[in-house]
Amino acid sequence: MRAFHATCLAVACVSLLAIDARAATQDTPSRSQIIKESKPAEWHVLDPANTLYMYLPKGVVVIDLAPSWAPAHVANLKTLVQERYFDDTSVYRVVDNFVVQWGDPNAEDPKKAKSMGKAKKTLPPEFERQVTASMPFVKLDSPDAYAPEVGFSGDFPVGIDPKAHTAWIAHCYGTVGVSRDIAPDSGNSNTLYAVIGTARRIDRNLAVVGRVVQGMPLLSSLPRGPADNMGVYHDLGKATPILKVRLATDLPKGQRLPLEIMRTDSPSFQRLVQAAAHRHDAFYKTSLGHIGLCAALPPVRPVPK
Amino acid sequence: MRAFHATCLAVACVSLLAIDARAATQDTPSRSQIIKESKPAEWHVLDPANTLYMYLPKGVVVIDLAPSWAPAHVANLKTLVQERYFDDTSVYRVVDNFVVQWGDPNAEDPKKAKSMGKAKKTLPPEFERQVTASMPFVKLDSPDAYAPEVGFSGDFPVGIDPKAHTAWIAHCYGTVGVSRDIAPDSGNSNTLYAVIGTARRIDRNLAVVGRVVQGMPLLSSLPRGPADNMGVYHDLGKATPILKVRLATDLPKGQRLPLEIMRTDSPSFQRLVQAAAHRHDAFYKTSLGHIGLCAALPPVRPVPK
Repeated sequence: MRAFHATCLAVACVSLLAIDARAATQDTPSRSQIIKESKPAEWHVLDPANTLYMYLPKGVVVIDLAPSWAPAHVANLKTLVQERYFDDTSVYRVVDNFVVQWGDPNAEDPKKAKSMGKAKKTLPPEFERQVTASMPFVKLDSPDAYAPEVGFSGDFPVGIDPKAHTAWIAHCYGTVGVSRDIAPDSGNSNTLYAVIGTARRIDRNLAVVGRVVQGMPLLSSLPRGPADNMGVYHDLGKATPILKVRLATDLPKGQRLPLEIMRTDSPSFQRLVQAAAHRHDAFYKTSLGHIGLCAALPPVRPVPK
Repeated sequence: MRAFHATCLAVACVSLLAIDARAATQDTPSRSQIIKESKPAEWHVLDPANTLYMYLPKGVVVIDLAPSWAPAHVANLKTLVQERYFDDTSVYRVVDNFVVQWGDPNAEDPKKAKSMGKAKKTLPPEFERQVTASMPFVKLDSPDAYAPEVGFSGDFPVGIDPKAHTAWIAHCYGTVGVSRDIAPDSGNSNTLYAVIGTARRIDRNLAVVGRVVQGMPLLSSLPRGPADNMGVYHDLGKATPILKVRLATDLPKGQRLPLEIMRTDSPSFQRLVQAAAHRHDAFYKTSLGHIGLCAALPPVRPVPK
């Protein structure tokens, strides 16, 4: 793995993961050890202007937004949040090993749907973005079924098609996207989903707006909806209420959760990936040589005091 | 994708997935359509001698055992089941995005542990098996982070190392393995786990005994255990009781659940893989060209009447 910017896509990018053989001949450090030894500058605090809190009865789900990847969808989502569109909606669809979905369960019924206020009803598809020189990219040396190249761009796991110069956020655990109807422009951020299982197969076909960085168990452990109704609860009374959704900047500082995420271009993140790919210790006998994209997500923690 | 036996590993095995371009230029059939059009002979009924039923308060979990892959562990598991070792034990560990674990929560406490009767306390590691000429293998044309080659062997998703002539069942959703301590021979099937999340990184380091083919939501939606206790509930009163575990052959025929699984060497399974890899329809705009191993598991259904 090596940090480089997108211009590197045109040249050979040697992977440090592949050439560091020492790790296989000695015990690899544990994940917690590497995190403990990391330096403060190797983390960054989540940007409050791009952090959503979704309050459920049992706790809060924190979403790290990705405005560079779906700018129109993220902007519309912020408008909806600031209009309190999501307050008193619900998580009403839970598909085992796939996604949970939330918003207004009556959004498609003109008579019952909540007003979207100033938010737009349709948006241009933002399923992929162009690779630009300013796009950060840390390549992961890992064969992948769904993308010619994979790695991390800022906080997010991404796939890249170097020939087409396109990139997209991968549907790893916790990825948050925008549900839509058949028409590619029918998504408008009033209905969102989070990945709770195997979902890479929908990469590049939906707009991704961020990733859940805290609170996934509040979503992943919800009762599954019926397969005969695509996971939507027949009885919406069983849906999980969403008390409110707020942008961190719209909360008093005392109510914000100070979280930081490890920088994916940091040496400690590289150590984490190396250790995972070449794990060898008392318990672990056969190291696999690689780690999959979705198994290498950057750690998130409360900002140390 | 092409069905072949293990002797084919020494020669080039052309993948039909890679060369069938037609699928990308017309709407792909849906999964349900392909299943509907499949022939009865493309399915096989689960072998009752290798099918476990685990009865939980809210329903039954059905496990398709893999005796060819971990013969000693499966034999010991059957002994334990027939001694009713698992009756009145519990699912006491739930790690978000990883595994659930069950058995006797006091198994490691000599004073409280249930008797294992005639079952063995230690077993030789069976983390991988040798590739033999009689081992079925249907290769999947899909780059994979954890194995040089992947595909299906009978009912199971597997990785293969052609150079070492070894193979192993992959830790996809629903894979059931044997927990162990540090020592590789310390697993004895008295404590099992099922994959509910991202777990390929433990491939080749634990013995796999089968796969859950029905009832996963009963496990995947359980409340997560605390991270500070490796997902083991502090209060074991919150563990999910296991009422009983039975081998299908030990039940009266009227109590068996007649399930069948699609043969992975059948034309319809190949159609399913093709359609998933080259999906193109009104909703789905960009087909990815491949489907990951764990996203291509063979379907299971009640035997049609």
